[in-house]
Amino acid sequence: MNIVLLGSGNVATHLALALRAIGENIVQVFSPNLINAKALADRVDSAYINNLAQINTDADLYIISVKDDAIVEVARKLADVNGLVVHTSGTTDIKVLSTEVKHAGVFYPLQTFSRTKSVDFKTIPLCLEANEASQLELLQLLATRLSNKVYQLDGEKRKVLHLAAVFACNFTNHVYALASQILNANGLHFDIIRPLIAETADKVMADLPENVQTGPAIRQDEGTINKHLTMLADLPELQEIYQTLSDSIKLVHK
Amino acid sequence: MNIVLLGSGNVATHLALALRAIGENIVQVFSPNLINAKALADRVDSAYINNLAQINTDADLYIISVKDDAIVEVARKLADVNGLVVHTSGTTDIKVLSTEVKHAGVFYPLQTFSRTKSVDFKTIPLCLEANEASQLELLQLLATRLSNKVYQLDGEKRKVLHLAAVFACNFTNHVYALASQILNANGLHFDIIRPLIAETADKVMADLPENVQTGPAIRQDEGTINKHLTMLADLPELQEIYQTLSDSIKLVHK
Repeated sequence: MNIVLLGSGNVATHLALALRAIGENIVQVFSPNLINAKALADRVDSAYINNLAQINTDADLYIISVKDDAIVEVARKLADVNGLVVHTSGTTDIKVLSTEVKHAGVFYPLQTFSRTKSVDFKTIPLCLEANEASQLELLQLLATRLSNKVYQLDGEKRKVLHLAAVFACNFTNHVYALASQILNANGLHFDIIRPLIAETADKVMADLPENVQTGPAIRQDEGTINKHLTMLADLPELQEIYQTLSDSIKLVHK
Repeated sequence: MNIVLLGSGNVATHLALALRAIGENIVQVFSPNLINAKALADRVDSAYINNLAQINTDADLYIISVKDDAIVEVARKLADVNGLVVHTSGTTDIKVLSTEVKHAGVFYPLQTFSRTKSVDFKTIPLCLEANEASQLELLQLLATRLSNKVYQLDGEKRKVLHLAAVFACNFTNHVYALASQILNANGLHFDIIRPLIAETADKVMADLPENVQTGPAIRQDEGTINKHLTMLADLPELQEIYQTLSDSIKLVHK
């Protein structure tokens, strides 16, 4: 398949590398920043452009992987292409594309991508949507070669998934950061808590989190909770989060 | 070394199995519930009792691994023993023991233990404290055979560590549970989000969480934040947590 990739950020980069690894042909990489376009294009043996007027109009698939609020602007320049145009956003409606292009779809990888850390694409859930059955089939054929976890989800369910992902990834990482802040303020290294973080995640790989909750809040251990709130007296934001999350644990498990 | 284990819960069980695995001699397991005492004792070739009057007074080490508020009550029955008496609690002061027994210490494994899931003890941080240098040395000799991560920490630092662990483990798991609740309410299975949870934890194994934060809050993406708050209108507790954690991310990264 001939693929044009529009974007050069973390999602675009990891996706491009995974597509190249299964032998797909990335014919063009677009980025408004030519240096970024070239950097990614060089890694996947592709041409590169920073001007959408130069877009290759004969590709089979156009993957828009840019910031959510820039998607529509890019899509507008793809009005004339006959290939399928997809975005990779969890929150953006397919209509944002289908009002601009001939064939629209969504190709949403549910994962957190880092600039430097490689990921095994086979384990990444790929959430697909398309307006036409033939286009959905094309996406499914591609997705099942990239990953073992392919889902067909409509826009509403995809948005729910993205919301859940904010809790499971963004908020989780921030709670790690708050633990790091507490350790740091007391001369302790984050390293000491890494095995606990790894095991906490590992426990829910084969069980549901509601079945493995531990700690003072679920034990209704008010003595420990009050000691902790006192220790956080100088960090009122953390004190509020401690209180809010402890109350929520008690409520869920009452 | 001859060891008496007081307790039969998750910490006591995993610790007993790890001690047995390195060839230590568990001479007695105590639990107020004789069935629980026997169940653990049978797994580590030990005698068992449910009456502290029958305690073996000749052991080298007594490990009290019971609920925090039951520690002092157990320690009182060990006033006559000459061996070292330790507890395994993150929040309990060493003084709770040292006012009751001849030689007091702390042996705190920083990990979340499940009844059924095995853990590699070699990776578990063991936090040690003792009133006497010779007793600390005894604990260190034992701990370094059990784990590659042995720390000597005073009670204040251990309490800070326990507080950080509530964030990194208990609150993290609860945030997973909230994601599960959102998915469940919309007919989506928790399985779809497991790879994201695994990667989110894996990312902070080699980096600090404050360096790898992603999501709408750090991007100051108010459009997405407001959409998410609207989606949570029927779940006001989750809405409050979403708002509180998003505000905290913005504050830390401003």
